[in-house]
Amino acid sequence: MLKENERIDDLQLDNLRIIQNPEFFCFGTDAVLLSNFAQIKKNQVVVDLGTGTGIIPILLSYKSKASKIYGIEIQQNVFDMAKRSVILNQLEDKIEIINDDIKNIDKLFGKCSIDAIVTNPPYKNGGTGIVNSADTKAISRHEVLIKLEQIIEKSSIVLKPEGKIFMVHRPERMVDILVGFRKYNIEPKRIQFIHPKYNKAPNLVLIEGQKDGGQFLKVEDPIYVYDLEGKYSQSIKDIYGIDK
Amino acid sequence: MLKENERIDDLQLDNLRIIQNPEFFCFGTDAVLLSNFAQIKKNQVVVDLGTGTGIIPILLSYKSKASKIYGIEIQQNVFDMAKRSVILNQLEDKIEIINDDIKNIDKLFGKCSIDAIVTNPPYKNGGTGIVNSADTKAISRHEVLIKLEQIIEKSSIVLKPEGKIFMVHRPERMVDILVGFRKYNIEPKRIQFIHPKYNKAPNLVLIEGQKDGGQFLKVEDPIYVYDLEGKYSQSIKDIYGIDK
Repeated sequence: MLKENERIDDLQLDNLRIIQNPEFFCFGTDAVLLSNFAQIKKNQVVVDLGTGTGIIPILLSYKSKASKIYGIEIQQNVFDMAKRSVILNQLEDKIEIINDDIKNIDKLFGKCSIDAIVTNPPYKNGGTGIVNSADTKAISRHEVLIKLEQIIEKSSIVLKPEGKIFMVHRPERMVDILVGFRKYNIEPKRIQFIHPKYNKAPNLVLIEGQKDGGQFLKVEDPIYVYDLEGKYSQSIKDIYGIDK
Repeated sequence: MLKENERIDDLQLDNLRIIQNPEFFCFGTDAVLLSNFAQIKKNQVVVDLGTGTGIIPILLSYKSKASKIYGIEIQQNVFDMAKRSVILNQLEDKIEIINDDIKNIDKLFGKCSIDAIVTNPPYKNGGTGIVNSADTKAISRHEVLIKLEQIIEKSSIVLKPEGKIFMVHRPERMVDILVGFRKYNIEPKRIQFIHPKYNKAPNLVLIEGQKDGGQFLKVEDPIYVYDLEGKYSQSIKDIYGIDK
């Protein structure tokens, strides 16, 4: 089940586990926050673009009543790891990991076929500080193989009318996301900022867009990762299911 | 000096005073926050679009070393009041209030002539809940006479290359502002959210855009109006010059 440098981590959630390779990267708070932010309805078909280890489909299989969750991952070694995590959790009927390029999702799924998209795309703009474009870490973190705008464009094609996209990103890319959404007829509907603590600027932003949605943006109450005593905040404990 | 229903308020700032008419509206926290957020350099020429009582030019005459601050106000009765406040403060050499339509600023000032624009535009989308379009309150609060996009378009024309615009608005209009800025070659550079208190969603947003600016958005630390004890926060005290 495990290859070199890989390990199995317990998600502390209904016995769910995930295979990770610390040499590449391990899932972070952003994936957990996005899975919590995404409002997936019963029997919906969901696609996770750039699924990595498959953490988001696995969390959503627990948190939602989606009928099917697809995870798209271009990197063969990462895809393979995600696929084994699905088998490890016996989730083959709910989750399908696909080894393909996000640019092909319109061919894979067809137009207006998907209820919801979730995505935790590479945060860094392509062309900034890339040493080795074949490097797994670089591909996951920088826009080497796909640009933010292409992700939005392809998402708009496969989403059903009124279908939703949920994205986590860095606040400094917020303009690119909001402008990109409108350009491809995805209206930003809901935004939530994640602050490391009180008084500090946010370091993550969660954005919900709706294809062909009406114009009104709701700004949610902020989430602070640490509370005033320097401990995990109640919101974070609730999201992680700590103290339950 | 005063007309019916008008009163003079002391700004508690270098003996500055302002004439207001509570029947129309009185200036709020938003104008004070915007004057604080705007970074005006020495000898710059500044225009305040929709100046109302002239509060922003009067505050900026104190807080900045601008060489000239113009305030544009379309409503004759409000313009007249702002003009008298300038005289009351003996600021005629620094501030000029102009009774004109924001749509005419390109004719008034010419292309690429202005260093910085500040604006606290009507918050509410035109066409929503307007009873009387000749009403002074309605014109100040709703997009009756000018749309947000027109303000941005005209600003882009009169701003010098690398000139800046500073805007205060409601967070739910953030998408319209950011998309509008990019459309007219004004790059959003800095954003700051104002929260009524800890844990609550922001109810105001301050945005700085730069004409022909490079793409990078800095999200500032948030401002909370009230602190954890329910008193004015230190940021607000600093901005208002309380306890100095």
